[in-house]
Parts: sequence; structure tokens; C-alpha cells
Amino acid sequence: MSKVKEIQSYLQQNQIDAAFVTTPDNVFYVSGFKSDPHERLLGVMIFKEAEPFLICPKMEIPDAKDAGWSYEVIGHQDTENSMEVLAQAIKARNVNPQKFAIEKGQLIVERLEALQQSFPQASFVRLDEKINAMRVIKEENELEKLRKAAALADYAIEIGCKEIAEGKTEMEILTAIESAIQEKGCKMSFETMVLSGPKTASPHGKPGARKIEKGDMILFDLGVIYDGYCSDITRTVAFGEPSEAQKEVYNTVLAANTNAIAAVKPGVRAMDLDKIARDTITEAGYGEYFTHRLGHGLGISVHEFPSVTGANEMTMEEGMVFTIEPGIYKSDVTGVRIEDDVVVTKDGVEILTKFPKDLIVL
Amino acid sequence: MSKVKEIQSYLQQNQIDAAFVTTPDNVFYVSGFKSDPHERLLGVMIFKEAEPFLICPKMEIPDAKDAGWSYEVIGHQDTENSMEVLAQAIKARNVNPQKFAIEKGQLIVERLEALQQSFPQASFVRLDEKINAMRVIKEENELEKLRKAAALADYAIEIGCKEIAEGKTEMEILTAIESAIQEKGCKMSFETMVLSGPKTASPHGKPGARKIEKGDMILFDLGVIYDGYCSDITRTVAFGEPSEAQKEVYNTVLAANTNAIAAVKPGVRAMDLDKIARDTITEAGYGEYFTHRLGHGLGISVHEFPSVTGANEMTMEEGMVFTIEPGIYKSDVTGVRIEDDVVVTKDGVEILTKFPKDLIVL
Repeated sequence: MSKVKEIQSYLQQNQIDAAFVTTPDNVFYVSGFKSDPHERLLGVMIFKEAEPFLICPKMEIPDAKDAGWSYEVIGHQDTENSMEVLAQAIKARNVNPQKFAIEKGQLIVERLEALQQSFPQASFVRLDEKINAMRVIKEENELEKLRKAAALADYAIEIGCKEIAEGKTEMEILTAIESAIQEKGCKMSFETMVLSGPKTASPHGKPGARKIEKGDMILFDLGVIYDGYCSDITRTVAFGEPSEAQKEVYNTVLAANTNAIAAVKPGVRAMDLDKIARDTITEAGYGEYFTHRLGHGLGISVHEFPSVTGANEMTMEEGMVFTIEPGIYKSDVTGVRIEDDVVVTKDGVEILTKFPKDLIVL
Repeated sequence: MSKVKEIQSYLQQNQIDAAFVTTPDNVFYVSGFKSDPHERLLGVMIFKEAEPFLICPKMEIPDAKDAGWSYEVIGHQDTENSMEVLAQAIKARNVNPQKFAIEKGQLIVERLEALQQSFPQASFVRLDEKINAMRVIKEENELEKLRKAAALADYAIEIGCKEIAEGKTEMEILTAIESAIQEKGCKMSFETMVLSGPKTASPHGKPGARKIEKGDMILFDLGVIYDGYCSDITRTVAFGEPSEAQKEVYNTVLAANTNAIAAVKPGVRAMDLDKIARDTITEAGYGEYFTHRLGHGLGISVHEFPSVTGANEMTMEEGMVFTIEPGIYKSDVTGVRIEDDVVVTKDGVEILTKFPKDLIVL
């Protein structure tokens, strides 16, 4: 069933007249049109029965049609009040909506007030949870894109490892990785991280002009967008023989990663997975150095549902996709993080990222 | 007068009980604390008389205090409902607000609804225009930061020009520029643009693996953040002797830039400045190739008020800061854009960006 049809049947079941989708990633999900509208209005209006429409800046109309949206596209210009253009388009459907579902976690107050002014009798309920529930379960065509995005992330790590050399800066290695992905016609899904030596111990460190030297460990955290879907991988490698202490940290993180992945299957809770990884690290004596959640959902957004934390009781279901990324950040030894993207399958797990995980010494 | 005090006197004059500032750049403006909260709650609550407070994720409390916020800081954790934490903090002030001013152009609906639930008798008016009106006029201490940000942008262009060499890629030059700015302890204010040869004719082109060759023109568009304030400069230079047609395009853009700047003074309208630059370009026969507005305001945000367009009747006042950036994009000749940052002074203009504008041939 198309996303539009699924939302229509949701509206019918819940006696809601219209749904207004405005989060850019959700607009992409239901329409196939990916756009960053900044402060300009972008949305998809779906009615219980009438034909839906997409509204966007006028100059983007051709792009919206090229993206495969086969219903009407309404354009607005900077000289117009876009919310009035929207109200006119709704009124042109002759459906007189009394109840709208809107994304209350994304829509700004002044747009709600504009709708209220145009439809003073209408009430407004939440659409957020419905779309989240749809997006959290990936269909086969989405998994296919996520597999390709993950393969590109593997390739990016391969490039990064090949680029490592004495005296090269983190930024030079980063640039080589990004250029290689650009040559494949793709973009990164977030700011690429290449951290070396002591900087590996900073989970949110910034790549810079530091030059690689023998004895460094090097941490790559990166992702690629393939056809609108994101990957996210972390690998940590050694440049020159690592110390015993570094090896111990590495192998502890690796055990946490593989233990958690081995437990992924329908029915396990997000919090159970976090606990398995955290227990592995704590038992090895590094508990205080694993300072973040185990992982996060992945799809059109690089961070989406489900959040894999010690507090999330959500039960994993077939088709959910998320990261498993334990880390230890011990500033007197090294930082290590090992991150994979996984899918919950009918009876277990599929690992999307395939770059080797045994400690690589370059 | 401090920003907090100025908002308090606005509340008193307008009989509003509390103002909730939530746009991150506005939070920085009133509190000195710059943070990107993503989906987490960040805001400053200012009361007519009671002590204001800042609310942010708990782990950011030390940063907020270090930034110079001297009133209370309320922290919330991911395990809490941050809007309930907010409501409790308001109630602890014993002021029982009946009328709030909120940023309706930024606050999301679910946060308004949470406030409505906690304060069912309250009404909500707009705060947006008041803060915009404050921010659009820069004070001397802000101008000082903008001058330094502009000097760093000049330096970045200087580095870029030095890096130009046969066979170097756009990305290599970009990396050298960004590394030089990083070494000064600063960040870029937006994605640096280094475009060469035919790519100069694409106003929103992306730097890539294209290699510089003799005969290219090279366009740099970049900016630096100094102490929270942004610069934005564009220069176009020639690598090897340019053609007569390229020189004519260059000198036309330069005349448009200098003619518009010469007209800047209190009382001139934004639309007048746009027209002066556009007329210069149109009279030279290139009108159809100047495809964007003349400029935009600049300050804490790299795009803010005033917008310098042919439709904006806003009158310029002393202390306003904006860009003047005419361009011609003629794909069979070259693209050229020349952008400066300017301040309206008491009786004219101060130009913040000082990198030379006569055509540089490298």
C-alpha cells in the first residue's frame, strides 16, 4: 500500500478529515520528494477521500514531479502568504475539513494559527505517532537502499584506511573519503569524523589539522546517503602496533558490539540490548567510560526511532533498523567505538555494515 | 541596557507577564549562551519583574554559566518531561502568568500545548517582531565582533588565493582555508564555497574534485564566526590572464557592488540599494544574469534581517549590518560575485570586509 493510501485509511478509521505532513523527512517518506525548505512552507496534505496535494516553493515544482509525486503540486512564491495559498488549495477540494491531524512536534505555532484562522471550526490532533509507527518498520524496498548505503559506508572506511600515512592530517584523510563518495554520486549522511591519537577519546571530537603519527589509533565515524536512506558506521584502527592496554580496550568494545548484535531478534527490548553491551564493558572494568546510549534508529533520518537506551522498553520487531555502537573513551589509553547498522529479521538479525571488525593494524 | 532588561521593560509596557525566548540564536542574543539543542528544550524565560531563568539540558548547565548567564539555570534530563520542568520553574516564581509572549515563528505546537495545559487561563502573543527589531540594530560591542569576523574572512580569502595552483582541486583549496581558520580557533559560518572555471556560473554550486587550470576564474564564498558573530565574503579572482568578456563581466559586478555601497546611509530603503546594483548590471546588458537579491542581514545568524531585495521597503538605520553581493552568472563567459559586509553609520557606511576588489590575476 502506498504511504498516502495508508494515511488515508488511518484518517477514515479515526474520522479525521485531513492530515498535514510537514517534517521534511516525512514529506520525503510519503511523497518521494526530498527537499530542505528552510523557513519556506513544504508539506503534503492528505484527505480522507479527496485527492492529496503537495505544497512547496514554486521553483521546486519540477523537482517534486520528477521525484515521482503523481498528484497535484501547489506552488507558492516569496511574494505570497504561503499559508493562504495552502488554505485556498484546501478550500478548492470542497471537503470543508473539521478535524486535521498535524505534526505537533514539528509544525510551528504561527502555521497552526494560520490554519485556525482559515478553518475556525476545525480541531487539530497529532499525526506524529502514526508516521513514526509507519517509518520505524522498513519495507523491503527501503532495506534494499539501506544495504546499499551501508556498502558505501564500508567503502568509505576502506578508503580511509588506505589514506592513513605518517604526517597526513585528519582533514586530508577526511577529504579523500568525501571525494571518493562524491565520485560515486553520493553525499555523506552527517559530518564525517576522523579522529587520531588522544582525540579518539572525545566522543564528539572534531577532525582538524592534527598529523597522524605511528602509534596512533584512528577512529572513523561516517555515513552515506543512498537514494534518501542513511548509513552510519564507526571503525577504529591502529597505525603501528598498539599497546596491550589499547588491545584490551578494543577487544572489550568488540565483544560488547558482537554480544549485543547476537541478541537482536523480534521480541527483545531496546533496553535489553543496551544492558548486554553495557554489562560486557562493565564486567571488563570500563563501565564508567561507556558514556552514551548503545544506538539509534536509522533510515531516512540518521537518527530516528527506535532509540536504543537503557530506559527504552520498546520491543524490537521485524523490519526495525538501528545502530549498535558501544564505545570506551579512556583518555590515558585510547578511545574505541565500533558501530554497525542492523535489521531485525523474522528470526534474528541481518548486519548491513560488513567492514571487518578484528583489530586492523596498519 | 541588557537584553533581559530591555525585554522586561517591553513586557511592562505591553502588560505581558512573561516572554519565552526559544530560537537558539535569540537565546544567545539575550543570554550569551550559544547552543544547538536539536530536539531538546532550550529557552530563556523572562518575567515582568521576577528573576529570569534559562532552561537547558542538565549537562549543559556549566556551559551556560561559563557563557556569562548570571541568573538561574534550570536543567532537564532526557528521562524527564522538559515542559513539566519548565512549568514547575515558572510556578516556583509565584507570578502566575496570564499572558505569555512566545516566538510563534519558531516554537512548535506541542510545546505551546504543554504551556496551555500548565497555564489554562493564559493567552499567548508574538514575541518574534520585538526580538527581530532589537537584533537588527547592532550595538558597538556587536560591531566590534563583526569587524573581527570580517577580518578573518579577509584572511581566509588571502589563504585561498595563495593556495591556487595548477592541478589543485577545489576541495584541496577549501581544506587549506578551513584549516587556517581552525588554527585561529574559529569556525566557518556556513559551508565554504570554492568554485572554478565553468562552475563559477552556478550560484549554488558545490566544491568538488575539479582541478584548477590556467584560464579559470575562481570564486570564493565563505565566512567566519568570531565570538558568535558571522562574516560572509565573496571574491572572484583569475588564474591566468582573463578574456575581455570575463573582464567586462567582472568590472560590471564591481561597479554594481561599489555603486550600491556608495548609496548606503540612514534613510535609504533596502529596495533602493537593490535597484542601484540591478540598474548598473542591466544597463551593461547583463540584467537577466543577476538572478538573486542584492544581500541579506548579518549578525548572530548568517542570514537575518534586513533582507536586501527589490520588494523590501524597509528603511535603513544606523547600526544595521548586511551584505552587498551582486553577481552575474553567464555560463559561456564566467560567473562573478563580489560580496562585502557593510554597516550603516550615522551619515554613511562602514565597509567591514577589506580584501581588495580590483580584479586579481594570479
